[in-house]
Amino acid sequence: MPAPYETHRAQIEAILLAWSVPPVGASRAADIMAWADLHGVDSHGLSMLTVYDQRRRQDRLRLDAVPTLSRETPVSALVDGGGGLGHPAAFLAMETAIAKARTTGIGVVCVRNSSHFGACGYYTAMAAEAGFLGMAATSASGIQVAPTGGAQARLGTDPWSFAAPGREGEPFLLDMATTTVAAGRIRNRANEGLPCPPGWVLTRDGHPSTDPLEASQKGGSLTPLGGSPEGSSYKGYGLAAMVNILSACLSGSTLITDPMHLRQPHGQDIGHFFLALSPGLFRDGDDFRRDVAAFCDALRATPPVDEAAPVMVAGDPQRAHAARRRHEGIPVAPGLMAKVRAIARESGAPWLLDEDPASPSSA
Amino acid sequence: MPAPYETHRAQIEAILLAWSVPPVGASRAADIMAWADLHGVDSHGLSMLTVYDQRRRQDRLRLDAVPTLSRETPVSALVDGGGGLGHPAAFLAMETAIAKARTTGIGVVCVRNSSHFGACGYYTAMAAEAGFLGMAATSASGIQVAPTGGAQARLGTDPWSFAAPGREGEPFLLDMATTTVAAGRIRNRANEGLPCPPGWVLTRDGHPSTDPLEASQKGGSLTPLGGSPEGSSYKGYGLAAMVNILSACLSGSTLITDPMHLRQPHGQDIGHFFLALSPGLFRDGDDFRRDVAAFCDALRATPPVDEAAPVMVAGDPQRAHAARRRHEGIPVAPGLMAKVRAIARESGAPWLLDEDPASPSSA
Repeated sequence: MPAPYETHRAQIEAILLAWSVPPVGASRAADIMAWADLHGVDSHGLSMLTVYDQRRRQDRLRLDAVPTLSRETPVSALVDGGGGLGHPAAFLAMETAIAKARTTGIGVVCVRNSSHFGACGYYTAMAAEAGFLGMAATSASGIQVAPTGGAQARLGTDPWSFAAPGREGEPFLLDMATTTVAAGRIRNRANEGLPCPPGWVLTRDGHPSTDPLEASQKGGSLTPLGGSPEGSSYKGYGLAAMVNILSACLSGSTLITDPMHLRQPHGQDIGHFFLALSPGLFRDGDDFRRDVAAFCDALRATPPVDEAAPVMVAGDPQRAHAARRRHEGIPVAPGLMAKVRAIARESGAPWLLDEDPASPSSA
Repeated sequence: MPAPYETHRAQIEAILLAWSVPPVGASRAADIMAWADLHGVDSHGLSMLTVYDQRRRQDRLRLDAVPTLSRETPVSALVDGGGGLGHPAAFLAMETAIAKARTTGIGVVCVRNSSHFGACGYYTAMAAEAGFLGMAATSASGIQVAPTGGAQARLGTDPWSFAAPGREGEPFLLDMATTTVAAGRIRNRANEGLPCPPGWVLTRDGHPSTDPLEASQKGGSLTPLGGSPEGSSYKGYGLAAMVNILSACLSGSTLITDPMHLRQPHGQDIGHFFLALSPGLFRDGDDFRRDVAAFCDALRATPPVDEAAPVMVAGDPQRAHAARRRHEGIPVAPGLMAKVRAIARESGAPWLLDEDPASPSSA
């Protein structure tokens, strides 16, 4: 039986607390990771505990870090993540950006010396819930994307999220890697023994391939959004570069192209960027929200190619996931469940999630 | 012989002045249009005079308009374009955003009641030249892009530009339609009798096609960046939607999905968005520029797929065009030259461009 959201969240928090993450940070990180799982972004929730556990063991993550604010102006601030989990630093940053937007109409906060912060969309959703446009981006740890025309990976998946408040509880919410697809979708193809569609991966010489093992095992790379020069992958490549400029260059974090990437003694030194902007600077905020809602409705009303698949707007698929999972609980695959159980046991955290009795790992 | 940049610019200005565009606006619009031609963005320079001429005759463009500022705060402003050319309104907006960024570190200016403003990249280049990060976006007049999963066009090409200062005179400068390719590139295929690569166009039922006449003559549409659901076109679609939210919803311009789109009595009512952000809010500005330059250099140093085609960074191809055209002059195809000559004659503007004596239109 999938556990209810609350239990799922509590399990994450219990493990983070057992790892000595300070209570406020553990609570926020658990919110953010459980939010990802609730909204169907399974790659950025509970499953990340296995990655954080690895980094913790390698002494590459300072779990007791407390993020701090510096260089504040009425419209901006810089956050130092202290080499800890990205979530508490990123939350503080977007919270600060929103507070500044309440006063001046806009807030921009950059973060340096951070690490993986979970789903980008959580932070822009914070802004939208507060009535603001939100923007968030982060630099990445993995080097896996080749620039257009290049035969070697130089960039990360470099996600960027944008949100805007519309009808209550229905923000426009785009959260996208600037690659054609995420590495996880390619892994799924490999697991199923299926080829990738053209445009997803490149060989180590930079040539198109449909082999799902190309990027992960054969020295190849992922493509920027667009997929090929003919598909205008220079656009996805350009967006990825801009994500790095906003996240790493602005905050002064180590560039992904720097030989010191992930080798700084003070932590992974990942950088993030957050912006909150008040529509009230330009017009009545309610009129703005009404226009966003009308615009989204008009897009949804587009005659669909397939009658069974109505046109959606960014945020709709994730909200559908959340509605279902709030009702049915959050499923965790048996393999992951076993790994998380081992992590909980070893860290001395209480075990709160029921395992599927049919799963071999519960033996 | 292609005319030198100065002559090319003067010809545009002369026609705008003959059309009763006020001198300041004519000078700015000529700068911006000639910049597009100089940088190889031929679709947004001199060639647009034929479109503006049509709109002028249809009384859909108030050429004597003077843009005005309203709703100013220390970080923001709203510009009313007065139903005139987009360029003077957009220039005022980015100029104002930059002035505010000099004082507070950030400036965001929206424009309503405007029209086509030329190449988006001109405005973000203004920000980068002033030492700031720049962002610019605009809503569009033409409805030609289907949302992912949709069988009818609902969106425009919805361009978005981002720039950042790096080495002097070499800003990072991305200027992209959020479609896979611009309509002009599809038109070129049709002119050459060649099919489009998969992913560029859709039939009127929303199915993939390689027929270059599909979108322009057969009721089909252009694809959002990504090209197909498997290529993650929801990302290009989402970016296009966000461009409309920033440009039209924030400024209060008429939505492209509104039945009153292009039918407002006060003008085309296109909306724009401009942002300038000071790196100095977060760190030393020179350190930021050094990091951007180092990052761009590292990307350019990626081993290329084809030794003869080194990896480039956004802005490089346009700078190469500009260097060549500053030296060789700006070429204008005979057909366009004849049309512009007719426009000049009819409006009483002096004729400054030499026509190619080999062209039939010079008879």
